[in-house]
Amino acid sequence: MAATVNPDLKKERENSSFDPNKITSFLYGGPEIVKKKRELESLALNDPDYQHEDLNFMSQEQQYETFLKKTLLMVTKVRELKIDVADRHFYRSAVIGTNPDPLGLHVGMFLPTLYGQASQEQKDKWLKMAENFAIIGTYAQTEMGHGTFLRGLETTATYDPTTQEFVINTPTITAYKWWPGGLGKTSNYCVLMAQLYIHGKSYGPHPFMVQIRSLQDHKPLPGVTVGDIGPKFGYGSVDNGFLAFNNVRIPRENMLMKYSKVEPDGTYVKPPSTKLAYGTMVQVRANIVVNSGRVLAKAVTIATRYSCVRRQSEMKPGHPEPQVLDYVTQQYKLFPYLAAAYAFWLTGQTMMSVYTTSSNQISKGDISALPELHALSAGLKALSSWVANVGMEECRMACGGHGYSHASGLPRLYANMTPGATYEGENTVMMLQTARYLMKSYNQSLQGEKLAGSVAYLSGVQPVPAAGRTRNMLDLGVLCDAYRHRAARLVHEAAVQLRNERQAGKDQPDAWNAASVDLVKAAMAHSQYFVVKNFAERLTDSTLDSSISDVLTRLCQLHALHGLVTNSGDFLEDGYLTGTDVRQARRHINALMAKLRPDAVALVDAFDFPDGILNSVLGRYDGNVYEHLLEWAKASPLNKTDVHQSYHKYLKPFLEDNRAKL
Amino acid sequence: MAATVNPDLKKERENSSFDPNKITSFLYGGPEIVKKKRELESLALNDPDYQHEDLNFMSQEQQYETFLKKTLLMVTKVRELKIDVADRHFYRSAVIGTNPDPLGLHVGMFLPTLYGQASQEQKDKWLKMAENFAIIGTYAQTEMGHGTFLRGLETTATYDPTTQEFVINTPTITAYKWWPGGLGKTSNYCVLMAQLYIHGKSYGPHPFMVQIRSLQDHKPLPGVTVGDIGPKFGYGSVDNGFLAFNNVRIPRENMLMKYSKVEPDGTYVKPPSTKLAYGTMVQVRANIVVNSGRVLAKAVTIATRYSCVRRQSEMKPGHPEPQVLDYVTQQYKLFPYLAAAYAFWLTGQTMMSVYTTSSNQISKGDISALPELHALSAGLKALSSWVANVGMEECRMACGGHGYSHASGLPRLYANMTPGATYEGENTVMMLQTARYLMKSYNQSLQGEKLAGSVAYLSGVQPVPAAGRTRNMLDLGVLCDAYRHRAARLVHEAAVQLRNERQAGKDQPDAWNAASVDLVKAAMAHSQYFVVKNFAERLTDSTLDSSISDVLTRLCQLHALHGLVTNSGDFLEDGYLTGTDVRQARRHINALMAKLRPDAVALVDAFDFPDGILNSVLGRYDGNVYEHLLEWAKASPLNKTDVHQSYHKYLKPFLEDNRAKL
Repeated sequence: MAATVNPDLKKERENSSFDPNKITSFLYGGPEIVKKKRELESLALNDPDYQHEDLNFMSQEQQYETFLKKTLLMVTKVRELKIDVADRHFYRSAVIGTNPDPLGLHVGMFLPTLYGQASQEQKDKWLKMAENFAIIGTYAQTEMGHGTFLRGLETTATYDPTTQEFVINTPTITAYKWWPGGLGKTSNYCVLMAQLYIHGKSYGPHPFMVQIRSLQDHKPLPGVTVGDIGPKFGYGSVDNGFLAFNNVRIPRENMLMKYSKVEPDGTYVKPPSTKLAYGTMVQVRANIVVNSGRVLAKAVTIATRYSCVRRQSEMKPGHPEPQVLDYVTQQYKLFPYLAAAYAFWLTGQTMMSVYTTSSNQISKGDISALPELHALSAGLKALSSWVANVGMEECRMACGGHGYSHASGLPRLYANMTPGATYEGENTVMMLQTARYLMKSYNQSLQGEKLAGSVAYLSGVQPVPAAGRTRNMLDLGVLCDAYRHRAARLVHEAAVQLRNERQAGKDQPDAWNAASVDLVKAAMAHSQYFVVKNFAERLTDSTLDSSISDVLTRLCQLHALHGLVTNSGDFLEDGYLTGTDVRQARRHINALMAKLRPDAVALVDAFDFPDGILNSVLGRYDGNVYEHLLEWAKASPLNKTDVHQSYHKYLKPFLEDNRAKL
Repeated sequence: MAATVNPDLKKERENSSFDPNKITSFLYGGPEIVKKKRELESLALNDPDYQHEDLNFMSQEQQYETFLKKTLLMVTKVRELKIDVADRHFYRSAVIGTNPDPLGLHVGMFLPTLYGQASQEQKDKWLKMAENFAIIGTYAQTEMGHGTFLRGLETTATYDPTTQEFVINTPTITAYKWWPGGLGKTSNYCVLMAQLYIHGKSYGPHPFMVQIRSLQDHKPLPGVTVGDIGPKFGYGSVDNGFLAFNNVRIPRENMLMKYSKVEPDGTYVKPPSTKLAYGTMVQVRANIVVNSGRVLAKAVTIATRYSCVRRQSEMKPGHPEPQVLDYVTQQYKLFPYLAAAYAFWLTGQTMMSVYTTSSNQISKGDISALPELHALSAGLKALSSWVANVGMEECRMACGGHGYSHASGLPRLYANMTPGATYEGENTVMMLQTARYLMKSYNQSLQGEKLAGSVAYLSGVQPVPAAGRTRNMLDLGVLCDAYRHRAARLVHEAAVQLRNERQAGKDQPDAWNAASVDLVKAAMAHSQYFVVKNFAERLTDSTLDSSISDVLTRLCQLHALHGLVTNSGDFLEDGYLTGTDVRQARRHINALMAKLRPDAVALVDAFDFPDGILNSVLGRYDGNVYEHLLEWAKASPLNKTDVHQSYHKYLKPFLEDNRAKL
């Protein structure tokens, strides 16, 4: 940290009501973990081998090359340093930041697929090479014309019993594999999802292990067309690629055969259950929820610190320009996302721990908990990534002009994180998956079944209370009740809408489509209820120090109240809340923001992002924003010369010509 | 246009209920203008001199150089082709697209400031040079630490009567000029806004004509520090710059003296009125509203066409994958922004024509219309640029994975347009300016004054109708009434809130700050009411063909109803609308979307963006998306070699080392 901290930020830290370390400890799971985290981060951030020019000064090609170098180095160092598997993510996130890297899919999808879907013999053959990075793989599923809908994939793997091989083909342009990270230039292997054909019959998509580049010279193998898909919004550090096959033959043993199998003669053996794959999905989605909380936390950290350093306008004639964070409109932009960052962070943790608990059951073959977990994780993934998207941009715009500069770190953060709304399940599709489970549960409850878990509340919709009742809108119990009522009502309304469409003569798919806007609304309300309730429940942790439980309670109240006033129509429509309640809620929000104002910097400090991870001139811990903005600009590419070459090429002749004509 | 149009798009066009040319004509102001527009666009788009590699494949430096070359060429060609001043924007937008260029501020701010604020002698001296691009200027106002608040500027111009010069200084780092377009590398002059000091007394910010680079060799003049501010979110094609002065002396005659003057002895002569500058602001903001409509129209064009080409999932078992636009959730993402694009396009036109009418009055010295116009334009600028921001991203995400590719054109469109929420008045500040006028008007009406123009409705807030009344929520009169009631009520509520804060003991500035969230809400409601009412009024144009007035009416209804259900709490809170009304509104939206579905492609075709302006593989008129996506990717930088150089540098030794260790 710099020697001198900006005096405004210093004062903020002196005036906060609590020690941010206590919240850091709460967020990361205890002081020991925080200690480990800080050690590993500092090890990575102070390692000169990882230093390079600002990524924002580089072309896409330079970014890729820099990240390839850095990631390979990291693999080697993690091995040398013998960093524990559970702690690696701390080291990794300090090296990589929020940038995707060329080995991301090797680690995140290629290896896990081998673990999960390869037979023992296959593991023996490939796992050691893959784990030791003697080969580098990616996971090639999405095609140019096919994303969400797995059964729509066109790539074919046709079994040839005469040679006991599969013949891989890309029959159309829309069948090109498209997007896999690390495919463009890096990988020499992939797990390929392709339609299995045996004796002219289709058996649906299956995974195959396919070598795509030579281990000698890295050239594409015969019949393989592979390349980079070109520049994207963010993601410059990774080579997302395309891939096509022309009669490429692979041995029968290259189909991953832990579940489905193809015998030498072409006999197909079915997998025992298709629901097992849900487990991984739940985990990946829980990760997205945690991550949504984290990126939101980063954006809010940057915007909040900068809003204390930045002074603007004249609130009172003759007075100095106030800190931007003293404007209530600025608080109203940032504090709800500060609260949402905490809310999703805690939601993600809960999902992880629920998953861990149930994965025990699952490994014993009891998959009864999976459908609910799967439905819940779909909605929470969508909700959290949507809110993070909007919130990151709100934070950027709250930084005024400098928010548009890459020096702020915010454009890159957004561009790298916004794909979360699409990958691992497009958000609207996710919400409709949740809705499908809600409809099923609702119908079961109508038939007298007792519901459990996150949908238990659907069993009994509360009646609208009698008029004239007054509520304390700060009471978390009252707020949870309101969210529960709203969710239950919207589930009920969507079900009615669905029934009406059926009764009007539509078949089930058309009725579902016609009601889908209401279904998404219901799933959203259900997911929001879960987040609010979970936040409130986490505050009952008896180990929480009162100084931090007070401030966390305010954040929870703000989160719930802000969602309530933003969607007030949902609560007012059936008279559950009154206009007076909603007005009261708005007044409480103002009062809460005033109370949170002095703690805002401590609340973002508590996220504990070192400067090297935040990567933002505006969000610096020491608040010395302006000096570093100038320094950064001076280092940027166009300032390498005083007079740019384009002057001599274009501007000089133009000006001279115009002067001559005067 | 390509020989073969994608069959899905072809069918869409065959099935639409109207001829898109009729709407094109309505949007652009008649068939003659459309003809001119198309001629000029095609002239520019077919000119081989303007061709270059895709901007997305270039570094920031290459983008700047390309645009400098292109813009200088355009200046020369416009002169040679003798294109009429009124038509130039058609030619210009075909050459430049939505990318800012290095001469943008010369044309958009430097020249207009000379016209508006230079005295006749000053015009004689500089205007010919500037108009003929013998010098290139920018407008340097914003400083690193000072944006919105003009009086906070720190750059000083101190008058020295002994030499009759101003001495220009940048006293602190926050006083660095920051952001002006064309400043970084291109301009040799600028209009500088600096605090005028005479005999130790401050007279506030004034404009000065300052040379910053040598006309001989383009080097910064002595005492001048100038450079580029570094890479940004979008805006790669322009050299936004920084600028600092160390005792730079300029002659007394370089202060722009049409209004304020400094006599040789240092006597300061005040300007006659400060409100005159409002006129330009109104015009600039009306432009932003038009432009918000246009960029939204571009994004919706891309997403709508692609949603007809793209097929996904299986709505009914065994059926082919449906066009994505057949999903009601997809319609619910796109159609409200299609409607908003029309709404803002028409709002911007109305603002322009109101401004033209009143500028006549203004030029005669009657500035009575200005405050209202100014307040209205502030709110509409903020509303339209906010909605465009959110809408562009909604359209991008509605394109699934391919929306993230720069091939879609959507990331660049967004990054280039999102600064509109900040420049020319930060949106929240804008809304509060509108609110200030609303509060003033409201108080005048309380004191019995009759209000006119856009705030006339504040004179009489309608009572909440008796319960049990049923409404036809498709009736545009009913919808306008509802928006008016909501705006009037929220203005009233904000005024009450302001009064309560005062009565609770806060001084005026603190009370204003405390009520600011409600004030923004009121200004937003006021602006939305104007947009809805204007849309409805434009439909009463008797020259409108019934085939297009039907479809435009549907868009207007959708626009009004979507805003209503999204903000339903505002209408329900005081019981003005009932739950039944809101439910009815939602059903109407579904029905309207179904009716608009067959006309969607024709409605975006009517915006009449040629492919060369849309710059989107996904939005191509011929719908041949996938072939061109592959072609675009193959041309991208990382595919220049099959095996990238980084393989030899990093990957090969890494893999060999790992293999050796197995």
